[in-house]
Amino acid sequence: MRTIEKLRGRLGELCDLAALEMLASWDQLVMMPEQGAPARGRQLGTLARVAHERAIAPEIGAWLEELGERELDPLDADIVRLARRDWQRARRVPPELTAERSQAQVEGQERWRVARERDDFASFAPALRRNVELARAYGACLDEEGAGAYQALVYDYDYGLQVGDIARLFSELSASLSALLADGSGRRRPPEPALPVEVQRRAVESTLGRIGVERKSWRVDVSAHPFTAWMGRRDTRMTTRYEEAGLESLLSALHEYGHALYERQIDPALEGTNLGTGTSMSAHESQSKLWENHVARHPAFARVLAAELRAAGAEVTPEELHGSMVGVEPTLVRVSADPLTYPLHIVLRFELERAMIEGSLAVEDLPGAWQDGMRRLLGLEVPSDALGCMQDIHWSAGSFGYFPSYAIGCLLAAALWEAIERDTGRRAEDLERGEVGPIQAWLGERVHRYGRRLDTVPLAEAATGAGLQVDPFLRYVEPFAA
Amino acid sequence: MRTIEKLRGRLGELCDLAALEMLASWDQLVMMPEQGAPARGRQLGTLARVAHERAIAPEIGAWLEELGERELDPLDADIVRLARRDWQRARRVPPELTAERSQAQVEGQERWRVARERDDFASFAPALRRNVELARAYGACLDEEGAGAYQALVYDYDYGLQVGDIARLFSELSASLSALLADGSGRRRPPEPALPVEVQRRAVESTLGRIGVERKSWRVDVSAHPFTAWMGRRDTRMTTRYEEAGLESLLSALHEYGHALYERQIDPALEGTNLGTGTSMSAHESQSKLWENHVARHPAFARVLAAELRAAGAEVTPEELHGSMVGVEPTLVRVSADPLTYPLHIVLRFELERAMIEGSLAVEDLPGAWQDGMRRLLGLEVPSDALGCMQDIHWSAGSFGYFPSYAIGCLLAAALWEAIERDTGRRAEDLERGEVGPIQAWLGERVHRYGRRLDTVPLAEAATGAGLQVDPFLRYVEPFAA
Repeated sequence: MRTIEKLRGRLGELCDLAALEMLASWDQLVMMPEQGAPARGRQLGTLARVAHERAIAPEIGAWLEELGERELDPLDADIVRLARRDWQRARRVPPELTAERSQAQVEGQERWRVARERDDFASFAPALRRNVELARAYGACLDEEGAGAYQALVYDYDYGLQVGDIARLFSELSASLSALLADGSGRRRPPEPALPVEVQRRAVESTLGRIGVERKSWRVDVSAHPFTAWMGRRDTRMTTRYEEAGLESLLSALHEYGHALYERQIDPALEGTNLGTGTSMSAHESQSKLWENHVARHPAFARVLAAELRAAGAEVTPEELHGSMVGVEPTLVRVSADPLTYPLHIVLRFELERAMIEGSLAVEDLPGAWQDGMRRLLGLEVPSDALGCMQDIHWSAGSFGYFPSYAIGCLLAAALWEAIERDTGRRAEDLERGEVGPIQAWLGERVHRYGRRLDTVPLAEAATGAGLQVDPFLRYVEPFAA
Repeated sequence: MRTIEKLRGRLGELCDLAALEMLASWDQLVMMPEQGAPARGRQLGTLARVAHERAIAPEIGAWLEELGERELDPLDADIVRLARRDWQRARRVPPELTAERSQAQVEGQERWRVARERDDFASFAPALRRNVELARAYGACLDEEGAGAYQALVYDYDYGLQVGDIARLFSELSASLSALLADGSGRRRPPEPALPVEVQRRAVESTLGRIGVERKSWRVDVSAHPFTAWMGRRDTRMTTRYEEAGLESLLSALHEYGHALYERQIDPALEGTNLGTGTSMSAHESQSKLWENHVARHPAFARVLAAELRAAGAEVTPEELHGSMVGVEPTLVRVSADPLTYPLHIVLRFELERAMIEGSLAVEDLPGAWQDGMRRLLGLEVPSDALGCMQDIHWSAGSFGYFPSYAIGCLLAAALWEAIERDTGRRAEDLERGEVGPIQAWLGERVHRYGRRLDTVPLAEAATGAGLQVDPFLRYVEPFAA
C-alpha cells in the first residue's frame, strides 16, 4: 500500500471514531436515561483514549516524514499539512489526561444539569473546578509557543486566531455597542407573540422542511441546550428547545441549521479525511449566525415565518414577528439575547474564562464576577446563578476558549452577508418567498466546500476579501438601536 | 501494575467498546435517518476492527500465560478462564474478516428493510448471499474441533452447546408437538381483542411501570423487530412494535423485559469484566420466554393485563385475553406464533440455516425451501416472502446459529418456571396482584447473578437440577392443545 493510502486509512478510522464519539454525546444529551451517565462517562473516556492512541501513533510520524519529501497533488498536500499539525498537537497530550478530561466533562454536564435546576452553584463548583484544572493542564501541554494555556485552548477551536486580536476586536466591539445602547437607555423589547409549544413545534418543522430538512437524512429533537451533531454527511441531528411562548425555538432551529448546512456542503471528496469538517468554531458560528441573524431576522423572511406560524394556528403578523426578533433590550440569558447585545454576553465569558484558566479568578468567585460583569456590560442585576454563570453548558463540558467564537461568528456572518448581497444582489425579494437556494449555493461555493483546507482568517479573506472586522456587524445592528 | 489488573483494564476497555457498538446498532435501528446507513456501516466496521485488534493483542497472551501459573481467587480465575477462551477464539479470525462482516451486516439490514417492504426477495438475495459466505468463512476460522462451520457458529452464541444435541432435542420436540397439534386439527385461535395502538401503548407503559421499568434507567422505543440493548447496568433500551389490534406489543414488551432484567441483575462485581453479561443466547431467551410464556400468559397475570388495558380504554376480560394468548393455531409469522407452535418455526430456521452454511441449500432456493418447510411442519402455504423467509432480521444481520437459542430458551424457561414454583410455591396468587418480586429475586439469585461464570448447560443444571430437557415445556403447552 502506498504511504498516502496508509495515512488516509488511519485518518478515515479517526473520522469514524470521532463520529461515534459524537453519537455517544448526542445520545447522552438527547436520549440517554439519566442513570446511564456513569457508564457513558467510562465509554467516552475509553473511546477518547483509543482514538488518541491511534492519532499519536509513531507510524504516522514516519508516514509524514516520508510524505514530506514527495510531490503530492494539492488535496493530498493539504491532508498531509493538517495531519502533521494535528499529529504534533495530539502527541503533546498524555492519553491519561485525555481520558480524565473526557470523564470529567461527562460528570460535569450531569452535575450542571442537576445543579442548574436547583440553582445550586456550590454543588456544581467542584466539577467545574476539576474541568478548569484539566483544561489548564491540557492547554499547558499544547502551548508550544509559550503564549499561555488560554491561547493554546483557543487554537484548539480556532487554529491561528490570536487572543490579542480577539481582545482588540472585542474591545472595539463593546465600546461601539455600548455607545449604541446608551442612545436608547430604558429601552424595552416588544413583547414576544404568544406561541403555544405545539404551534412552535409545527412551525419549526414546516420552516425547516422548506429549506431542505428531510426525515431521510436529518433528525430534529429537543435538548436542554440546542446543538447540532453529524454522524456522516447524510445523518444530521439538530436539537432545539421549546419554552412557553417566544420565538427562541424558531431562532435556535435556524441557528442550528446553519451549523448543519456547513457540514453537509463540504466537498464530498474530503469525506473520511482530516479535512472533511468545518474549519473552526468561529467559522461554524458564522454559519449559524448567518442563518439566525441575516435570514431569520430579515424583515422579508419574517413573512415566511409568520405564514408558517399562522398555518400552525398562531395569530401573528410579519411586522410583529420582525419587531420582536430585532427589538433591543439587555437580557440575562445569552441564548435569548437580542442580536445587538448578544456579543456583550460573549465578551463577559471571554474575560471570565480567560481569568479562570490564567488563575486570576477562582471558581468560587465566579458568581460574583459574573454579577459584576453583567452590571458593567449590560447594566443588569443577576438574580440567580441558574440565570447567571450556570446558564451555559460549555464550561461544565470542559470547553474553555470556545466562547469567543460566538462573537467572532457574528462579525464574520455580517461580513459574509454583505459579500452574498454584493455577489447575488439584495436578498429581500427571494427571502419573501422563502427562496434560500442562492444563499445555500453561495455558501457552499465560497465557504463550506473548503472544509479544513483554509483556517478561519484565510477563509474570511477568501470569501469576503478582508480579514476579521467589526464594521459590517455594526452596520447590521445599527438600525435595531434606533 | 499487577498482571491481573492489566488484564482487567483491557477487558474493561473491551466492555466499553462493546457498549458503544450496541449503542450505534440501537441507534441505527431506532433513531438513525435512513441515509445515515453507509456512514454507520463504516463506523461499525471501524469499531469492530479496533475492538478486535485490542482483543487479540499478543500482550493478552503473555498476561494469560503468566496468570496461568498463579493462585487466583475464584472470580479472577473465572475471568482468566473466559479471557483465555475468548482470546483464543478471537485470534482465529482475521481483522479484515471482522470488518467485512460488520459492513455486510449493516448493509444487509438496510437491504432487508427495503426489500421486505416491497416483498422483493431478489433484491435482498445478494446481500444475504454475502452474509452467508462471510458467516461460513467466519465459522471455518473458529472451527478448531473440526466439527464444521455451523457448529462453530453455534458456539459463538452458546459455547458448549452441541449441534447434535440440538438436533435430537428438536426432533423429539417437533414429534411431540406434531402429535399435540394433530389432536386438534382445524383448530382456530380465538380472535384477538380489538386494541387501538394508543391503548396498547398506554398499557405497555403502565404494565412495564408496574414491574420496575422507570424512565431514569430505561427507554422503551419502537422498531421494526423488537430487541433489547444495554449500554450499562442502568441504561437499558427495549423496543416493541405496535400493530393495529392484537396483543403482540404487550407480549413483546414482556419478552424484552426478560432480556433486560437478566442483564440488570448480574452481580455488580462482574461489571466491566468479561463475565458481566448474559452467558449465552439460549440463557437469554430462557429469560425472555419465561416472562412471555410463564408470566404474561399466566391466567392470573391476565387479570393484571386486562386491568391495565381497561384503564387505557379497552373493553376486555381476563378470560378473553388469556384465551387469545394461549389459543393454538399455526401461523406464518414466528413472532406472533402461539406458544405451542412457536418452536416449530425455530426448527425450520435451524434446518435451513444449517443447510445454507453447510452449502446444501443455495440462497436462491431459500424461498422454496421455506415454503416446503412451512407445509411440512405447520401445514401452511406461504403467500409471500415478506411473510416467509424475509420476516426476521437475523440472517440479514449475519446471525447464523442464533435461531436454535429461541427454542432452547423455551425449553429452559419451562424448566426454570417449574423450579421457581417448586422453590417459592405456586405463583398464581401473587401474579393476580401483579406481584413479581419473588420471581425477580429467584432469577437474580439462581440465574442472573452468575453472568458468564456458568455456560448454558451447567447453568441449567445449577438452577433446575437437570440438563436441557423437553418435558417441562411439553407439560406447559399440553393444556393449550386441548
